[in-house]
Amino acid sequence: MQQPPTNIWTRRLSSLQKKISRWKADGILFTDICNIRYLTGFTGGEGLLMAGRDEARLLVDGRYTAQARTEVCGIPVFEFSDKLQGIEQAAAKMGLSKIGFEPSRMSVGDYNRLSARLKNANLIPLDEELRMLRARKDASEIALMKKAAAIAAKAVSELAQALRPGWTEREAALYLETQARRAGAEQIAFETIIASGENGAFPHAQPSRRKIRHGDFVVVDFGVRCRGYCSDETCTFAIGELTRAQKNAYRAVKRAHDEAIAAIRADADAAQIDALARRTLGKKYSRYFVHGTGHGVGLEVHEAPRLAPTSRDILQSGMVVTVEPGLYYPGLWGIRIEDTVVVKKNGCEILTAMSKDLITIE
Amino acid sequence: MQQPPTNIWTRRLSSLQKKISRWKADGILFTDICNIRYLTGFTGGEGLLMAGRDEARLLVDGRYTAQARTEVCGIPVFEFSDKLQGIEQAAAKMGLSKIGFEPSRMSVGDYNRLSARLKNANLIPLDEELRMLRARKDASEIALMKKAAAIAAKAVSELAQALRPGWTEREAALYLETQARRAGAEQIAFETIIASGENGAFPHAQPSRRKIRHGDFVVVDFGVRCRGYCSDETCTFAIGELTRAQKNAYRAVKRAHDEAIAAIRADADAAQIDALARRTLGKKYSRYFVHGTGHGVGLEVHEAPRLAPTSRDILQSGMVVTVEPGLYYPGLWGIRIEDTVVVKKNGCEILTAMSKDLITIE
Repeated sequence: MQQPPTNIWTRRLSSLQKKISRWKADGILFTDICNIRYLTGFTGGEGLLMAGRDEARLLVDGRYTAQARTEVCGIPVFEFSDKLQGIEQAAAKMGLSKIGFEPSRMSVGDYNRLSARLKNANLIPLDEELRMLRARKDASEIALMKKAAAIAAKAVSELAQALRPGWTEREAALYLETQARRAGAEQIAFETIIASGENGAFPHAQPSRRKIRHGDFVVVDFGVRCRGYCSDETCTFAIGELTRAQKNAYRAVKRAHDEAIAAIRADADAAQIDALARRTLGKKYSRYFVHGTGHGVGLEVHEAPRLAPTSRDILQSGMVVTVEPGLYYPGLWGIRIEDTVVVKKNGCEILTAMSKDLITIE
Repeated sequence: MQQPPTNIWTRRLSSLQKKISRWKADGILFTDICNIRYLTGFTGGEGLLMAGRDEARLLVDGRYTAQARTEVCGIPVFEFSDKLQGIEQAAAKMGLSKIGFEPSRMSVGDYNRLSARLKNANLIPLDEELRMLRARKDASEIALMKKAAAIAAKAVSELAQALRPGWTEREAALYLETQARRAGAEQIAFETIIASGENGAFPHAQPSRRKIRHGDFVVVDFGVRCRGYCSDETCTFAIGELTRAQKNAYRAVKRAHDEAIAAIRADADAAQIDALARRTLGKKYSRYFVHGTGHGVGLEVHEAPRLAPTSRDILQSGMVVTVEPGLYYPGLWGIRIEDTVVVKKNGCEILTAMSKDLITIE
């Protein structure tokens, strides 16, 4: 008898399917496109996965049928012209009456329409159950993220060589992305941040026409994708001579970054790592650190877990997280230092490749 | 007495505020970041707008406080560390008990947490009421989209000059984006599609390492942003000599595109425009046209209205929509021709700038 095809995606799906009963459901409707990619290999921009205990169906609209049938092996692909009707038919054919879903990835509007449509089925929110679905990475995922990080770091290091005072932030961003794409990056992982001088005080600044000049800090937050997996790394360059206050602030951020990384290991409390970074910054600086210390990275650039004051996550081996303390002085400048690390039993491994010692550009 | 500051955003907000009572609410919580940008001028990636009948508050987390205070004039900015608490406080201070929200832009998870938290307030879904909020563009918005379209078209036309058989799709995408960014594009509006030969049969293909070669169609779907506003245009190039079947198919798509554009005017039924494009393609081709005929464009590259078989939208003057029939032959090739137009009383004005006659590259 012929065996059903197995690959990394069908193995992930089977392992998920074993848990469906435990969650008091007989199926799960996935709407999160990254979870769908993770479980099926489908790389399209929209689609739905209906996973029963021992079968599954990928539902796509006409734009994605050909692509899904090419990419996905072992899971039948169904085309719908009306999404609700597609879901209803799949649920009926698969005999599902207790359907789990991702409450953080379904809109209230879709939920209301779907509940009205699925008269014979209950929708069961699976929030905590699915939140960590992709959090622990396997060796193949870590290899892709390392490859992405290497391509990104090479481009950042080429930018550090090429950059001169007088370049605009946009010119620097274009140079950086061009180097990365020439080196084989399939995509940029998120909007590149090149934030110089006072723009550095906006953690999520967009590259502007501001000319980079002597005395600036330049925050360079950059990542690329490799088969969907993101890298995420931030360096802050110094342009020429800095003030003593700037140098001290950089050292404080570097210390917070180093201490937080040294504390990362399996079973560590994510909120405690965040607290340690803040404590290391100390009273003088910590009120200028206006965001969380880190976040998970994978198929999404921001995913579970969170390293932040309100996080209740516990780190587990194989999780990949950023550590990115920063300081933001409105009207003056900003600093951020970020590495991405894999959590290990007794520590962590840094995936990103740039040194975090201050790089000065003359 | 000093007048409150007025600008395009406060005027939009006031005009919205006048409608709140009509919708049986005393305030609206906006979660859609493009609606928030439209009503306040805030360009950050995350935030909330609580609009009462005669006051409003922008709520952001620490990453965006400095940016919001710089960008937004006439609306106070409040920083929160806990989103739900921030919303609860704003609702209490503003005395809101019937709060409208955007059901397509709030997740079930957020809705459940928010309902549990807001014990003294009802949440009122405003779906149809808000769906067309940004659909009709004013002259300033149209000017920005025209500027974006001009920058994008110049880059596409430079690509048509430079492209030679042997380039990979990724090389072509990088060339195109680089030309556009050197010409001042602040951002690419969406992932550039360069889909050659058999890849053209995937409407949403990602640029691959495939080498472009003689006999290919190359679908080039490209747009840039200008102060947030997107352009969206698709050309299909021919590389060298095509088969007769390819030439006939191109002519059929061009005809469908031209007929649909000729039918666009205020009060036209969007589903009828879609039906006309399909009818013009005819029986031989229309089953290979696997997506809707068009969509609105603005601060989002896909927004209301929709030109599709299931659409119930009626076009109104000032709406900006794409017209983009295509044919997709799995394993062989694809064609798409797309313009973006402004709906006028008696017709439409094309904002995109490339000719849609077949461009042949030798």
